[in-house]
Amino acid sequence: MTDVQPAPTGRRARGGADARRAARTSTAIRQAGFIRRKIKLYEPFSDEQLELIERNAETVLQETGIDFYEDEEAVAMWKNAGADVKVSEKDPRRFRVRFPKGLVRSLIKTAPREYTQYARNPENNVVIGGNNTVFAPVYGPPFIRNLDEGRRYATIEDFRNFAKLVYMLPSLHHAGGTLCEPVDIPVAKRHLDMTYTHIKYSDKPFMSSVTAGERAADSVAMCELLFGKEFVDQNCVMTSLINANSPMVWDGVMLGALKVLARANQACVISPFIVAGAMSPTTTVGTLTQILAEASVGIAFTQLCRPGAPVVFGTFAASMSMQSGAPTFGTPEPALVTFGAAQLARRMGVPFRSGGGLCGSKIPDAQAAYESSNTLWPTLLSGVNFCLHAAGWLEGGLASGYEKLIMDADQLSMFQKFCEGADFTENGQAMDAIAEVGPGSHYLGSTHTQANFETAFWRSGLADNNSFEQWRDDGEKDIVVRANTRWKKLLSDYEAPALDPGIDESLTEFMAKRKAVLPDSVS
Amino acid sequence: MTDVQPAPTGRRARGGADARRAARTSTAIRQAGFIRRKIKLYEPFSDEQLELIERNAETVLQETGIDFYEDEEAVAMWKNAGADVKVSEKDPRRFRVRFPKGLVRSLIKTAPREYTQYARNPENNVVIGGNNTVFAPVYGPPFIRNLDEGRRYATIEDFRNFAKLVYMLPSLHHAGGTLCEPVDIPVAKRHLDMTYTHIKYSDKPFMSSVTAGERAADSVAMCELLFGKEFVDQNCVMTSLINANSPMVWDGVMLGALKVLARANQACVISPFIVAGAMSPTTTVGTLTQILAEASVGIAFTQLCRPGAPVVFGTFAASMSMQSGAPTFGTPEPALVTFGAAQLARRMGVPFRSGGGLCGSKIPDAQAAYESSNTLWPTLLSGVNFCLHAAGWLEGGLASGYEKLIMDADQLSMFQKFCEGADFTENGQAMDAIAEVGPGSHYLGSTHTQANFETAFWRSGLADNNSFEQWRDDGEKDIVVRANTRWKKLLSDYEAPALDPGIDESLTEFMAKRKAVLPDSVS
Repeated sequence: MTDVQPAPTGRRARGGADARRAARTSTAIRQAGFIRRKIKLYEPFSDEQLELIERNAETVLQETGIDFYEDEEAVAMWKNAGADVKVSEKDPRRFRVRFPKGLVRSLIKTAPREYTQYARNPENNVVIGGNNTVFAPVYGPPFIRNLDEGRRYATIEDFRNFAKLVYMLPSLHHAGGTLCEPVDIPVAKRHLDMTYTHIKYSDKPFMSSVTAGERAADSVAMCELLFGKEFVDQNCVMTSLINANSPMVWDGVMLGALKVLARANQACVISPFIVAGAMSPTTTVGTLTQILAEASVGIAFTQLCRPGAPVVFGTFAASMSMQSGAPTFGTPEPALVTFGAAQLARRMGVPFRSGGGLCGSKIPDAQAAYESSNTLWPTLLSGVNFCLHAAGWLEGGLASGYEKLIMDADQLSMFQKFCEGADFTENGQAMDAIAEVGPGSHYLGSTHTQANFETAFWRSGLADNNSFEQWRDDGEKDIVVRANTRWKKLLSDYEAPALDPGIDESLTEFMAKRKAVLPDSVS
Repeated sequence: MTDVQPAPTGRRARGGADARRAARTSTAIRQAGFIRRKIKLYEPFSDEQLELIERNAETVLQETGIDFYEDEEAVAMWKNAGADVKVSEKDPRRFRVRFPKGLVRSLIKTAPREYTQYARNPENNVVIGGNNTVFAPVYGPPFIRNLDEGRRYATIEDFRNFAKLVYMLPSLHHAGGTLCEPVDIPVAKRHLDMTYTHIKYSDKPFMSSVTAGERAADSVAMCELLFGKEFVDQNCVMTSLINANSPMVWDGVMLGALKVLARANQACVISPFIVAGAMSPTTTVGTLTQILAEASVGIAFTQLCRPGAPVVFGTFAASMSMQSGAPTFGTPEPALVTFGAAQLARRMGVPFRSGGGLCGSKIPDAQAAYESSNTLWPTLLSGVNFCLHAAGWLEGGLASGYEKLIMDADQLSMFQKFCEGADFTENGQAMDAIAEVGPGSHYLGSTHTQANFETAFWRSGLADNNSFEQWRDDGEKDIVVRANTRWKKLLSDYEAPALDPGIDESLTEFMAKRKAVLPDSVS
């Protein structure tokens, strides 16, 4: 396993390096650390089945090909690498790229099996890959929902609230990226506020803006102010989401961000975004084939940009309501896709991203919980290394839920304990306890129970396990009401992790300069 | 796999055998059939770890022993079998039984690896064991809960309602037993009404009363009226729950029912009932050791009663709130226990019972759903063969939930689809579809999607996957409201499966005779 070492000294300005490091790292929040899985994986597919999918994906790459759209540089790079490139007769911006057998696989060989993403607090560094699982919150919704206000458009204040909450929730190991879309800030500028918020209000690792190459470049520049330019060039400080335009298209927007990030040695999560039945075949094996073809081309492309750049095999898969066309979550078919894609990623030798607490429900009711659990179990047992949307996701990704964030985070801590597996030491075997207590008695006061009392069982921070009468007298609250109380308490208790004032000032200056030249109107 | 064959002719009275069979079997309800799992199991424990637990359990049986309480016949049977028996100095009704190495294991060898439980409708016969999972509803709560009335004591009308609903829900393969306690009927008599309700209002396989040996005998007698005496002696028509009095006690009430049922060739589910920390050590491995010791003695005892009698290795495990002492559900430790016990049962060569849709929540909110899912995933992936409490469980088993029953059943159908695994046929590979659609298009109208439209994805019968706007205009219903509508519709649509009037009359006569001699006051 890659050693997790503290990030070294940041940029050379405004005060001593040691002081800045200390300032970057202080935090009152006790974090759980990412999951180092001690239990086995669940691998439902056989080697023969996976080989079949790999052969089929090779066939797709050779015969059908992948379209590159609005990025001539990328097309030229593929041509140089030996791919067959044909421009579309209908659209000169569209190129069909076909890949000779083995080309894509051979390019992927330079990708690392795992990598460390550094946080400004080295205690929050994460190792992505191997037996590890890193949980990151919901990404992308334009709306928020909470019990008080219902559903409304998100603002930068919501974004800050979510950043603060994620910072305070130990089971979220990663700060994520677009916690919600701050629609009150112009599109061309909001990536600056989001990146700044992640740096200022949290000290966990975070994600880059990817909505344009120049916005990704701004994220890199801000990281250089925080960590130092040389450090950023040699180490991963952002893991960022690059979605394929399925089926089988990589477009200029995503490629633009990918090129900036990979060349800056920053990790790209190469993610086919699939609603099966619409963006892929209706079947699990057909979907896996397409995912493998799309992802492997994106992964290979990061290595064309910079061999050795960290990269993650991503998969986002939903099924589709064949009645309404809406994506559906918590269903069995995406679960199988997750298990299969995880196995394919391990065979490829790169970290894997999938899963999350996905649901279609508009509200954090039992539908949301069933669906989220049905996504989280496959996430954990398949061996997902980087889990985006692990908490806070509602309404098919259209809303970030305040209560849902708290509820899911509680579940994540359950999974974290599960991944520790069983203790087979003498204390775990408890033979003395069984002999001491014997038939017809109870273990409550036994030596063994007393000794293991504190850590014996995972304890939910939200579940009500009181008697019916106690629960009734407490006002018959459901879990959403308790979660509502919890996030408000967390926000009122929040204290920002210290940030070197010099760094803070340089970031603020950078933002002001960029905002001065960026338009308010561009989308 | 055991062939599932129709139950032969019932008792010789009141009309032709063929007519009766036809009458017994007619049903308007389309059932899903039990799960024949095509996917792999998840087996987190290694052979070495399981061998350690087995050795430790042998040590417990040899050195600590198991108490038999208020059943001198059972004690004498163990003495004859070669066990060491000592009466308690404090209580002459209590005997400590210690087992020479290997005795218990050798007795278990006559137990079948799997067995068929016959239903009056042969289409609903179930094979318990092997790659199969059979879902049965909640068992035992004294209360019911629904959205209209909240929580109140259960009545025989509730019991009938649950029997009707379970009959109509295809994902419940088994009618279960004490769907709720009909507290409006005297304790000594209610087993008759419950058994009759299962026979009359459903045609799925069901469970015996076990609250006393004579009540189990009444269940057997009623089955003899339904299936014929000889058939019952040679075939399993009831699978029934025999709980250990953990830690390490088998008491006279459970042993009384066990003896009647095993001698009648009826299946006993031998279930340690564990709230870890109180009834077993706090640790997973210690709990598994005790479960194995308790279960193997109970299983062996069924074989002392009648070698070859069908028997199931059962496990009910909850963790405990170390604050309040309340059992907690959906936690990681019981999940590990379920996986471990399933592996131990397979090594023993008998079917396994555990899991369910367990939760501590008082209401069917997101807490209930998270916790239920956290129990159901281990249920399915561990390879549980007989899953009691699969639907309708609330409040740690104190309440049967009308809406929860419907909600869980919907989830069970999800798991049933998941267990089918992925299709690797040409149609499943969908290579033609990928080639036909190609980059930048969509699959909605493709030949392949059209051909697979109907069965492509599992479809929830309860989840709302409409747009936000549609959902809002429909009244912002949560899943509980939809489930409430559903069970009322099911009950209003209910039609009883035909039952031969002669059999019905004989059952009614039997009940009347028994009720005439049974007391109203005895508990």
